Parts: sequence; structure tokens; C-alpha cells
Amino acid sequence: MGDSSVEGEFQRKETKFRNRIRDAPEAEFPPEADRYHLYIARPCPWAHGAVLVRALLGLEDVISMDVLDPYREEEGWQFSPDREGCTPDTVNGADYLSEIYRAADSSFSGHVSVPVLWDKRRDTIVNNESVEIMKMLTDAFEEYRDRSVDLYPAELRDEIDQVVEDIYEPINNGVYKAGFARSQEAYDRAVDDLFEALDHWESVLDERRYLAGERLTLADLRLFATLVRFDHVYHTHFKCNVKRVVDYDNLWGFTRELYQLRGVPETVNMDHIKEHYYTTHTDINPTRIIARGPDLDFTAPHDRGRLPGGPPDALR
Amino acid sequence: MGDSSVEGEFQRKETKFRNRIRDAPEAEFPPEADRYHLYIARPCPWAHGAVLVRALLGLEDVISMDVLDPYREEEGWQFSPDREGCTPDTVNGADYLSEIYRAADSSFSGHVSVPVLWDKRRDTIVNNESVEIMKMLTDAFEEYRDRSVDLYPAELRDEIDQVVEDIYEPINNGVYKAGFARSQEAYDRAVDDLFEALDHWESVLDERRYLAGERLTLADLRLFATLVRFDHVYHTHFKCNVKRVVDYDNLWGFTRELYQLRGVPETVNMDHIKEHYYTTHTDINPTRIIARGPDLDFTAPHDRGRLPGGPPDALR
Repeated sequence: MGDSSVEGEFQRKETKFRNRIRDAPEAEFPPEADRYHLYIARPCPWAHGAVLVRALLGLEDVISMDVLDPYREEEGWQFSPDREGCTPDTVNGADYLSEIYRAADSSFSGHVSVPVLWDKRRDTIVNNESVEIMKMLTDAFEEYRDRSVDLYPAELRDEIDQVVEDIYEPINNGVYKAGFARSQEAYDRAVDDLFEALDHWESVLDERRYLAGERLTLADLRLFATLVRFDHVYHTHFKCNVKRVVDYDNLWGFTRELYQLRGVPETVNMDHIKEHYYTTHTDINPTRIIARGPDLDFTAPHDRGRLPGGPPDALR
Repeated sequence: MGDSSVEGEFQRKETKFRNRIRDAPEAEFPPEADRYHLYIARPCPWAHGAVLVRALLGLEDVISMDVLDPYREEEGWQFSPDREGCTPDTVNGADYLSEIYRAADSSFSGHVSVPVLWDKRRDTIVNNESVEIMKMLTDAFEEYRDRSVDLYPAELRDEIDQVVEDIYEPINNGVYKAGFARSQEAYDRAVDDLFEALDHWESVLDERRYLAGERLTLADLRLFATLVRFDHVYHTHFKCNVKRVVDYDNLWGFTRELYQLRGVPETVNMDHIKEHYYTTHTDINPTRIIARGPDLDFTAPHDRGRLPGGPPDALR
């Protein structure tokens, strides 16, 4: 993803498990209630996308979920059932997420990341790529989900895919490229691209209620997952300090509108988010001190109602 | 300065040379043109205070000045004549500031800091404590300075001293206590105190043009030196990210008014400031990447004219 012409540029590792839950007779992984399980961590924006889809579609009783410790130590993501907001591994009884990867593939030695979509029937990982998980939860579980909520409507898929791709490199991954840059040049380029993209979408959202038009889609959830973390973490810890989200009228209004949808606040654990970033990345924050961050009111009224469209009634 | 009841709290080292230039017959260091010399570095807010007094009083031709490299390496502050905005040591021909300290005291092994006020006649350091230098430049050089500008007027000295003391611990030194804290508790306390103090002075400046009333004094220069660095450096690098100065109407207007006084812009070298902090403190920024920072317009109109008082005509 992205070219690597700039020395010191952060390179994101590839995900490995790319199977699909499909609603088809011969499917290896057919949709089914209480068969699939999500392993997530609250800090991770990629995992947050999957959690948001599960919440907005009302799939909480269909797809179970466990929550990892926000602090990722040297051994990687772990279960800390006694920590507030965390759960044990209710499916496999593991201590570390890496055990789940090895349970799916005993020779696995790659990057252990969240989200993980686990199949409790076949005892393996279906998929660990966040956008694919978001799409299959929407697509394959039509019969289980709230039908009034469609985050990936057929007639908008090309547009949604394009937006998801467009925002990924400069924004979703861009904050990481700024934060993990190992050269001033790599940092400068990431920051240029990030704020150019934010400026662009600020302008788009001046006329469109959502990224793909009048309907809320999973593209919006992708952007939201980055924006909701921005001023507390990316702005300071990742040095993305040209502007804050609150300096952008439309992006900030968009962030507040999405935050206020039914089920969303429960998916945002700012304590977990802040702890993870500031304490895990000792290569950029050796003191592990957690910055206080601004006091933002995600529940303040937004003015997005001035634009046509809006969320499904079920999410209001 | 401050108590040390909190573990991991930053302790500022004491300055050592505390002689005074006095306008008195028997004075060891009497005021005299072309006798005294300032060694400064553009990043340092303490040095900035002395530089501001020299500039506002029009003492540039009376007190000479050399400018150190903004990057403070392991050997300490050094002269890098070839770097933009820097000078050689025009007085002693030294490579490092530590040589100046040892020239004044061959057994010196303490903290080598700026500003340094050097006596070219007696070949020694007069003083290296910033507030004392600010006061003696104002006080002792009455006959050499612009008499319409008095930054430490006799009738306000108690008030000025009190303000200087009040803002020192929570604000001027507070940003360092936040940035160099070695425990979450020390950081949290520093940040609490810092923003409580900023909130307080924001409210004072809603009714007063300057910190000590209607007249510009050296107390204002002390606060300005911290505020002008705040959003670019302290907010991100020192994690003072509860608010930015631009979020405070009065503090930001005050900062702009002072920036726009005659002679002040030349004292602010934001490139030097940013390079110093982000590249010198590798214990809190190991990558040495310089954060871009917000694009602030210090020259934008301010509304401080709504309050009684104002700067001397000579500084407009």
C-alpha cells in the first residue's frame, strides 16, 4: 500500500486470513447466528470499524465479541479479563491473541493484529482484514440484521469502495505514517498528504451529508474511526498538529453526528484509546506518559441536519 | 522552586552568577556602553526575555549579543557561525558556551544555560539569571535606553515581581514540568496547574490590557516568551494539549499584540525554536522529527485596544 520511495516511511504489514462469509449454498463459511466471533481491542481504528458495523446493524446477539487489553506489550495483544472494559477469551481461553492465530495456522509467524473474525464451528480465523469484515457483516447477515440499516447498499458499492480507498492512504493510514516516520522527509510527506486530504473531505462534507452522499455507509465509519481519535492521540502523539478535527466545521460536525448514532458511544473507549497509543509506542514516547488531551464534547449538537439525507430511523 | 513531593518531577537547576549592574559610584559593574554582552539562543524562553528587553529599550547598540546554535548537543550549547540566524562568539572566540562559564570560573562544573550577561571589561559573567538580567537592563541603563519605555517602573515593581513569581512555577516552568515529567502523577499535576493558571490569566486579561495593569512591563514579556512557543512546541512536544493558546481569546490577543510591537518579530525565530525542542530532547522525542505545528498568524489584528492603556508610542 503506497509506494516506498521515501526513506524512513512506515510500512503496514499485510493481513493474512482473507476468507469470506457468504450467503450461498456451497459456502465454506455461511452466515449463521452464534457461529462467528470478533476479537477486538478498543484502541484500534481498524477493529473499531468492524465493531461499529456490528453495533449499527444490531448484530450483537448474532456475533459474539471479546475485548483485549488496550496495552499491547512485547508479547503482543493479550487478554486481561480483570481490567475495566476488557473480557476474557470466552471462546478459546487464550491468554494472548497470538494463540488464536496459531490455533488457526500452527505455522503462523506473521503480524498479529485486530480485528479477528473467528469461526466457532470450524475453529479457525475467517478473516482479519478490517474492510472485508465490515463488508461481510453487512452483506452476508442480511437475514439477521436490522434491514432498515444497509451500510453497503448495492447501488453505492463502487462509490463506497472508491471512498474507502481514497481515504485509506492519506488519512486512516496517514496518521500512522506521520507518527511512525523515521525520517523528517517521510513525516513531512505524510503530514502534507494527510491535511490535504482532510481539507478535501472538509470541503466535500460542506455539501454532502456523508462521504458517499445522502446515505450513511461503511465509508463513513472508516473515517469516523480515525477522526474520533484524532485530537486526543494523532494530533499530539503522532505529531499531526497542523490542525485539529475541531478546527474543521464539517469534519467535526460529521464526527459528532456519527458519535451520536444509537450504539456508537458504547464503542468508543477513550481511556483505552489513549492508554494504548501513549504507553505502547515507547519508540516515540519513551516516558509512556499519557497526554491529557482536549476536553471534547462529542455529544454537543451538530448541524448536519442542514444537508439532505440522514441516518436510518433505527439509528437515531 | 516548587516542592518536590511528586515523584518524577522535573527539577530546574539553579543559576550561579548573580552579580548586578548598578548605577552607583562604587559599583563593581557600572552601566557603560559597549561593555556588556549577551550570549543567547533563540529557542530559550528565558533568554528571550532578556532579548526582548534589549530590543524594546533600544539597547542594541549599547549591549552586544551573540546567538548560539539552536540544537543543543551532548556537549551543550555551541556556536555555529555558519548556520542561519547564528553568530560566532564575537567576544571570546569560543566554540562552546561552557568555555565562557569556565572563563568566568575555572572550576565551574554546573549547569550551562542561557542567557549569559558577560562583562567585556572584567572578562567575567555578571549574571545568568534571566529575570535579574531583564531588571538590570531596564534599571541600570536608564541613561542609555529609550526613556519613554520603562518596563519596570518604580511604582509597579511589587506588582510586577508578584506577577513574575505567580506565572513562573505553573506556566513558564510548568510547561517544562509537564514535558520532562517522569511519572504520570508529576505530569498530571503540572498540566492541572498550568491550565488552571492559563485560565486565571485569561480571565485577568479580559479586563486588564497587561498583566500588571495598563502598562506594558517585563512581566508581560515573561508570559509572552512562553505563549509564543506554546502551540508549536509545548502543546505537542511537552504534551500540554488541553487547550492551545489560540483557544484563549485574551491570551491569544495579548500574544499577537506583543508580537506586533516594534522590534519583537526579529526576536522570534520559530525555526530555531522548533528545531531545538524537537531535536534536542531525544529522551522524549527519540526520532528527532520536528512536528509541523499549526499555521498561526501572529500578525493578525488583535482587539486589545478595547482595553485602557497600551504600549509606549516608541513601540507601536
